[in-house]
Amino acid sequence: MTNPIAEKTVQLLKKIREHHPLIHQITNFVVMNSTANITLAIGASPIMAHSHEEMEAISGFSSALTLNIGTLTPYWVESMIKAGKEAGKRGVPVILDPVGAGATPLRDEAVRQIIDEVPVTVIRGNASEILSLSSQGKEIKIRGVDSLETVEAVRDNAFHLAHRLGKIIAITGKVDFVTDGHKSIEVHNGHAMFSAVTGTGCGATTAISCFCAVEKEKDFLTATAAALGYYGLAGEIAAENSKGPGSFQVALYDALYNLSEKTMMDRLNIKEIQLH
Amino acid sequence: MTNPIAEKTVQLLKKIREHHPLIHQITNFVVMNSTANITLAIGASPIMAHSHEEMEAISGFSSALTLNIGTLTPYWVESMIKAGKEAGKRGVPVILDPVGAGATPLRDEAVRQIIDEVPVTVIRGNASEILSLSSQGKEIKIRGVDSLETVEAVRDNAFHLAHRLGKIIAITGKVDFVTDGHKSIEVHNGHAMFSAVTGTGCGATTAISCFCAVEKEKDFLTATAAALGYYGLAGEIAAENSKGPGSFQVALYDALYNLSEKTMMDRLNIKEIQLH
Amino acid sequence: MTNPIAEKTVQLLKKIREHHPLIHQITNFVVMNSTANITLAIGASPIMAHSHEEMEAISGFSSALTLNIGTLTPYWVESMIKAGKEAGKRGVPVILDPVGAGATPLRDEAVRQIIDEVPVTVIRGNASEILSLSSQGKEIKIRGVDSLETVEAVRDNAFHLAHRLGKIIAITGKVDFVTDGHKSIEVHNGHAMFSAVTGTGCGATTAISCFCAVEKEKDFLTATAAALGYYGLAGEIAAENSKGPGSFQVALYDALYNLSEKTMMDRLNIKEIQLH
Repeated sequence: MTNPIAEKTVQLLKKIREHHPLIHQITNFVVMNSTANITLAIGASPIMAHSHEEMEAISGFSSALTLNIGTLTPYWVESMIKAGKEAGKRGVPVILDPVGAGATPLRDEAVRQIIDEVPVTVIRGNASEILSLSSQGKEIKIRGVDSLETVEAVRDNAFHLAHRLGKIIAITGKVDFVTDGHKSIEVHNGHAMFSAVTGTGCGATTAISCFCAVEKEKDFLTATAAALGYYGLAGEIAAENSKGPGSFQVALYDALYNLSEKTMMDRLNIKEIQLH
Repeated sequence: MTNPIAEKTVQLLKKIREHHPLIHQITNFVVMNSTANITLAIGASPIMAHSHEEMEAISGFSSALTLNIGTLTPYWVESMIKAGKEAGKRGVPVILDPVGAGATPLRDEAVRQIIDEVPVTVIRGNASEILSLSSQGKEIKIRGVDSLETVEAVRDNAFHLAHRLGKIIAITGKVDFVTDGHKSIEVHNGHAMFSAVTGTGCGATTAISCFCAVEKEKDFLTATAAALGYYGLAGEIAAENSKGPGSFQVALYDALYNLSEKTMMDRLNIKEIQLH
Repeated sequence: MTNPIAEKTVQLLKKIREHHPLIHQITNFVVMNSTANITLAIGASPIMAHSHEEMEAISGFSSALTLNIGTLTPYWVESMIKAGKEAGKRGVPVILDPVGAGATPLRDEAVRQIIDEVPVTVIRGNASEILSLSSQGKEIKIRGVDSLETVEAVRDNAFHLAHRLGKIIAITGKVDFVTDGHKSIEVHNGHAMFSAVTGTGCGATTAISCFCAVEKEKDFLTATAAALGYYGLAGEIAAENSKGPGSFQVALYDALYNLSEKTMMDRLNIKEIQLH
């Protein structure tokens, strides 16, 4: 029995490793080193840059753009908008990670402004962040950058948000959920140890950027699910080869780098579901 | 024979792992990733944020605040003061790491201003940094961010500084020394390998923040010593399981995550001493 | 048969471990943690600082200065120039890493300005970056921070650039090439796995800074080759003890820390060559 999403995952990874697409990342100070290493382990090439003077030039030779508001200031939000607009003009996919959305007015306003001004392709967050985006100003309870909600509880919100915005929404958690507001996909790969290492959510966003960078048929829904399946499976293998969060992170980079086609075909657990 | 400080250490760690307190960290670019991972390995939750616009909001839901001047600029010092004042209003413990105090006028002025304007609870530094703070403008010899002094040589300075400021002072080194200017505690756990990895001093400060975040009886002297004992013991175990600074850091995160109650009760070496 | 460059490598490393020279690093956000750890593993002491107010003070007690434009903004370029001028006055070696030179006008202008205003001692880059520097405004094709050129293809450019500028130029790649425009040296130590980990090029620059910091006979050509040989050999050993980019980085820090005199004398492969 063939699994078309697993096959697509294998094909996209092959293309990444063949073309080494350049991934422009405007991201937070905490995870820059991790997401650069994750980008390289996947087979793509990272460029971190945020100076307003070079946003246009760098967008000019990048294949995907990651926007991550983890340690935002107004200057950095402006960097994101400059780069995002240029990426939009060139048809380059833009992946938004709304870290801590709902936690402070600064973050809510930044996310609103980015979504208004930049043609974002995919938004990936935890359940609380996605709930916050879908609540449009209605007060909800968020605490810092952790999720207080479960993925299951906010699936409907994600589905309607995706439909309304015309974007892909991905919620990561125990079981990841990806939707475009029409079709929806569940990703069952992953491991609880991810939450004991900083930047692993941001790393999932990085994986999505790498996969979308080489997705030429514009099926970003499947590319997003493929990225999360591959990334989650690498986490499973890392957990089998480690004994705590330090060795897990090391093993995660190794697993992303070494993951074979056969292991992916055997163990990827990604499936389309009917939400309604 | 029971050891009340070891018992308190076990209890505080249990509370951290139960409540996952949010630790707001305004810290330097070099160690942000490390201290976020150390926070998670201990069982707490890190939030790194420095934008002036959200300092009040983030202080509003945090349980401790770390201020670390490692790569300071005037903007970041202002972030620290904004967040510190709000933390003070809410009775949230503030832990100051005066990295490189004594090395440049910018750092001395920043530390002076923070101590003047923010109700700092604990100051943790190496011997040179604490000597610099206690010298009040008298010239002393400091070189960069390393300590040229031993902990033993500046114990009296720390004791009198703590007494004068009404704060907890912790000096880390071969044997750590913690004092409130009345009572003093020695922490004999630790390992020389800590000094071969960047950010391990800042990591000790992080551990103090996590332990103070759940200390509801306001005994921050014991909570600080408990944090240093637990952190130092994790370093001992990491050294037993590594063969250089790279594998030491990995093993440190694993050890912080896995440290058991039994190992702590067996190996914690923390004791109150009479300084005068 | 003795190898004088290998012997000099051993001697310089011994001096680093004896004197722990302070290396001031104005570098990018992605690699700060890595290069601080590499500095410590080598035996030197890192200080990362960029605030304009303390550039002069920090240059006043540092033994080498690294300038790396990876995530530059105009503020940071100004920090580099302030620190570089002071280092120049004091005769402290300045090591420039022109990350992404040729990729954007901002980077080209920054490199031009730094070379004009600061007495840079050594420039280390990949082949594309060095080609870009030697092309003086003639358009060449660069993509992001990766090299599209081979070291061999741009040796002549490096030789003439070194001659014209009166500086040491080092190109790292499969075989490293170091020249002062008169004499040239090849370094055959290294491993392909370096390119799967972020910041390893910047780490090579760090190693050069550490070696130049203790080179008192002003033979910075040999000191640069020595640093690259030692660093490349540590990478070879790391590759023997790892199974992917995560464990490679960990093993690299361990190898830098543990590399013995005997292993260096046996395995360093550095030799002077006749280019013309």
